[in-house]
Amino acid sequence: MGITRKLEVKTPVPVDIDIANSVEPLPISVIAEELGLQSQEIEFYGNRKAKVLLSVKDRLKDSPDGYYVVVGGITPTPLGEGKSTTTVGLCQALGAHLGKKVVTCLRQPSQGPTFGIKGGAAGGGYSQVIPMDEFNLHMTGDIHAITAANNLLAAAIDARNFHESTQSDKALFNRLCPADKDKNRVFAKAMEKRLKKLGIEKTNPNDLTPEEVNRFSRLDMDPAKITWRRVLDVNDRFLRKITVGQGPEEKGMTRETGFDIAVASEIMAVLALTTSLRDMRERLGNMVVATSRGGDAVTADDLCVGGALTVLMKDAINPTLMQTLEGTPVLVHAGPFANIAHGNSSIVADQIALKLVGPGGFVVTEAGFGADIGTEKFMNIKCRYSGLKPQCAVIVATVRALKMHGGGPEVVAGRPLDHAYKTENLELLRKGCVNMAKHIENTKLYGVNVVVAVNAFATDTAEELAAVKEAAIAAGAFDAVVCTHFAHGGAGAADLGIAVQKACEQQNGVFKFLYPLDLGIKEKIGMIAKSYGADGVEYSLEAENQIETYTRQGFAGLPICMAKTQYSFSHNAAAKGVPTGFILPIRDVRASVGAGFIYPLVGTMSTMPGLPTRPCFFDIDVDLETGMIVGLS
Amino acid sequence: MGITRKLEVKTPVPVDIDIANSVEPLPISVIAEELGLQSQEIEFYGNRKAKVLLSVKDRLKDSPDGYYVVVGGITPTPLGEGKSTTTVGLCQALGAHLGKKVVTCLRQPSQGPTFGIKGGAAGGGYSQVIPMDEFNLHMTGDIHAITAANNLLAAAIDARNFHESTQSDKALFNRLCPADKDKNRVFAKAMEKRLKKLGIEKTNPNDLTPEEVNRFSRLDMDPAKITWRRVLDVNDRFLRKITVGQGPEEKGMTRETGFDIAVASEIMAVLALTTSLRDMRERLGNMVVATSRGGDAVTADDLCVGGALTVLMKDAINPTLMQTLEGTPVLVHAGPFANIAHGNSSIVADQIALKLVGPGGFVVTEAGFGADIGTEKFMNIKCRYSGLKPQCAVIVATVRALKMHGGGPEVVAGRPLDHAYKTENLELLRKGCVNMAKHIENTKLYGVNVVVAVNAFATDTAEELAAVKEAAIAAGAFDAVVCTHFAHGGAGAADLGIAVQKACEQQNGVFKFLYPLDLGIKEKIGMIAKSYGADGVEYSLEAENQIETYTRQGFAGLPICMAKTQYSFSHNAAAKGVPTGFILPIRDVRASVGAGFIYPLVGTMSTMPGLPTRPCFFDIDVDLETGMIVGLS
Repeated sequence: MGITRKLEVKTPVPVDIDIANSVEPLPISVIAEELGLQSQEIEFYGNRKAKVLLSVKDRLKDSPDGYYVVVGGITPTPLGEGKSTTTVGLCQALGAHLGKKVVTCLRQPSQGPTFGIKGGAAGGGYSQVIPMDEFNLHMTGDIHAITAANNLLAAAIDARNFHESTQSDKALFNRLCPADKDKNRVFAKAMEKRLKKLGIEKTNPNDLTPEEVNRFSRLDMDPAKITWRRVLDVNDRFLRKITVGQGPEEKGMTRETGFDIAVASEIMAVLALTTSLRDMRERLGNMVVATSRGGDAVTADDLCVGGALTVLMKDAINPTLMQTLEGTPVLVHAGPFANIAHGNSSIVADQIALKLVGPGGFVVTEAGFGADIGTEKFMNIKCRYSGLKPQCAVIVATVRALKMHGGGPEVVAGRPLDHAYKTENLELLRKGCVNMAKHIENTKLYGVNVVVAVNAFATDTAEELAAVKEAAIAAGAFDAVVCTHFAHGGAGAADLGIAVQKACEQQNGVFKFLYPLDLGIKEKIGMIAKSYGADGVEYSLEAENQIETYTRQGFAGLPICMAKTQYSFSHNAAAKGVPTGFILPIRDVRASVGAGFIYPLVGTMSTMPGLPTRPCFFDIDVDLETGMIVGLS
Repeated sequence: MGITRKLEVKTPVPVDIDIANSVEPLPISVIAEELGLQSQEIEFYGNRKAKVLLSVKDRLKDSPDGYYVVVGGITPTPLGEGKSTTTVGLCQALGAHLGKKVVTCLRQPSQGPTFGIKGGAAGGGYSQVIPMDEFNLHMTGDIHAITAANNLLAAAIDARNFHESTQSDKALFNRLCPADKDKNRVFAKAMEKRLKKLGIEKTNPNDLTPEEVNRFSRLDMDPAKITWRRVLDVNDRFLRKITVGQGPEEKGMTRETGFDIAVASEIMAVLALTTSLRDMRERLGNMVVATSRGGDAVTADDLCVGGALTVLMKDAINPTLMQTLEGTPVLVHAGPFANIAHGNSSIVADQIALKLVGPGGFVVTEAGFGADIGTEKFMNIKCRYSGLKPQCAVIVATVRALKMHGGGPEVVAGRPLDHAYKTENLELLRKGCVNMAKHIENTKLYGVNVVVAVNAFATDTAEELAAVKEAAIAAGAFDAVVCTHFAHGGAGAADLGIAVQKACEQQNGVFKFLYPLDLGIKEKIGMIAKSYGADGVEYSLEAENQIETYTRQGFAGLPICMAKTQYSFSHNAAAKGVPTGFILPIRDVRASVGAGFIYPLVGTMSTMPGLPTRPCFFDIDVDLETGMIVGLS
């Protein structure tokens, strides 16, 4: 790439926000031009962020793609493995040190945790996306659009049920299809899909029989089977379970429901998996929000709100262009949960990026959680819908996390780290490498070359680092490389960049999925469970019933998105390393029909975080002299 | 102005969205340059919207202001008077037909009603702000920022109460001011304000006595006296009254509360009334969210969240530049409720606009509801905080609305309009003109010249229009002008523009407020009630108690923001014309301490609209061929 930025690296490494604030970002117009984007293909949001319009996909549809690299990790630990940091560092290496065209494709983080415990998600040290505050906060409003669309749909559900309960068939129909002064009525365009679903072929509302009027006008949603919840992008534990409709005007139609954090909305998963405006319109309309008293799935299009949802999401469908500390381009787009959803950034951003970098260029995208979840879903859900095939998968590992997988002592936030993690301990480390080995073996089955990135800490010894490399190669990795991008930026990941380049150039495996779609839901779940090392699967009664319902409703052909803890290959978060001899319990099975997957629940997933006694926001403020944000981490 | 756009007007007037879509907006960079904005003072959001940074206020602080015009109306009726349309039409006239520098300052509409009953708020016919869809939907994310900030504060309140209830003083303090490994503790900067309020002058947390630790660590909010509610920008009636905290992890700490629509948030009122980033930081921190069990006001700064709120609002403080159909500049910024808040667009937008147009130029801003509410609050709240003084107030009137004030028959949505409104009826009209006359008289008391804009309909007769003009002049209006900007754009308001220009140039009254701030709360309420024509005021017990509390807490010096129906000078919406002989009942009194006003409740105000059986969203969709939005009105 032509224009990049030279980093001046300090030791010890300053805190993230200080590094981010110390670098003046390049004008985003420069980044866009460098990537070959035309002026009508970008919309600026200030001069450090821009939306890239999907029209670029059409212009470049016949151009060949660049190399496609996915970054996963070993099974995560509370120690942090630095997956985002490695993704960014690798791209800084490829773009600013190895002269390659490169685009980093990242998820947009939820704003909620930024003010809670976790802090931001823009990478760290000298491998970050900037401006870090804009990345972590509103960005270009995509999550706000999701919140608005999600909650418009929720309001539409309760309002419809209310109006159905208080009106006769005739009154309902008169309002849905009002007569003009000559008694003429018309169906709204938005009603066509429902009419077709009901098998009503009449085009004049006045021709409907009373029975047809009844079926058309009443969605008859069972209040106990409304699955659509409201969302907010804030850590608000008191909204996890609430009762709505307690106002006197709602006439006693109270109902228990709750809020999830916004990124848990199915609309976020739709955004991540869609391939065009037309496709998004279809998926949003197909979202199932409730079951009727008669057992039918009720969709957003049944409520005639699919079009309005698309209108609210029409700008959000365009990825946001930002940059790394070294001035390489980043596309930030979509950030679905990695348990109840598939945890990967958007298909459209990857597609655009692959065309923009072209042959010999690199697109590096991060998958959520460990490779058992993130990379698996990347392959079997995201790549299935996109048609894209990666050449290389990176697996990020650290010495300390592998020691934990080898049986190292528990780590508790706030307490000093055990010396096992800070001094050489080859025995623990070698034992823990089995976890990495299993991720390598699983990932290789997709026909990609696997490169292990050993994210080095100052306390790691040369022997320890060598042991990890050795174990990785023994497990079939194409290469394993020690890197120091946190402390040194792209320069610290240059060897990793070279290894990834070779892995892409020399890839000759045949890409294949873990399971075909035309198997039954249970068979597909079984194959994924087997990849975890499970001896079998057991289903609760609810799960059995749901599988039966979804099969009857015609959704069995969807891919599977396991909602499992990220802290173990198994369902037991405490089982480190490579657990064996377990039966995977499926507590319940749910579906995101619009987004396009079935998600079995392996245990309980929290979809709304809380705030601690002293949240991050205690330290966050605007410096009134400079206008800069302070206290973000 | 140099660059404007020539309108080609069709008869009959097409629907709003078709007119809006038929005009290709000028690049917003052209509008900005034409206004004299420098490139570092604007941030583009696409090429049809831009944020104008507050730094322009500093650059131009010594430049003289242009003329300042506020547009109010007669008492509104369901017939619609066209106040926004007149505001836009007047500016199109001044800018595109009379060669003046002009900026229209408008409120940002709530997105909720766009999908409900009301439709958009960008003006109408050939007097509109474009792109109409972007104006009515996300715009530049300001309302989303308000939603995020409002709800972070709400989450902080419930989380804090939860943690206080489950922890000892010592445990709480240990978390609020954690000790490092040498047992050292520090106060966060955000804690300084609370320490000062508590009279604790110690700077080392370890020096606090157990009693001080208790007072410092416990806000001790009374759950029954938490007044801060959550908000969403959607018409969701089922959220009006809810119970939160019903999840098992919340340990039975359930509480009744509710959601308002986002624009009802106090943070919206803060945005509208603030004058700088520093001032906004102060106001956000001062917002009172609850009363403690000991009777003290608990603020956002007590929760240490004022800084984070400011961070979330730091882009929202910058007004958004858009344009009219004729290419004249518009600043859109803030849209507080006009009953529980003051219903005017932002101070900063007006301040910037007045500098940008300079001497001989015009800034035209709209006030919500009728002049009894919108203009009154413009003068006594907005101008009090801004220090700005208007020269001219426009009052918009229509023949049909005045007929209703004269005793015309009720108007019911969906039923044909009574012939009294469509054929000449000078008797009804003359009777109704008393309503206009009282608004003129009241408005003149501020020392401004009043111009009546008679927004003409095709069914109005020449005699009727003449009668309105005559009555206006008789009541003391500087001028009264018939205008047809809905059908003809700025050309139809050129005479109005000339009248407004003369009214500004010849203004020689002395600007004065209706009441001084240093009176008691009741005396101030009494003076406003008198301006409505009330014989007196009566207070409920709650109102008496609240007035006592606010006086004790030191808030009696704030201006008064009456939450009264807009449909009558009195509290009775059915009392048209000029009601007399009534006592104004004050049901309750509340305060927006951060925004800076006391608001007495005259009757019940709905702060969360609902969706009808067939909401607007049935017709809203994206045309997948063109990408254009259809069905918005």
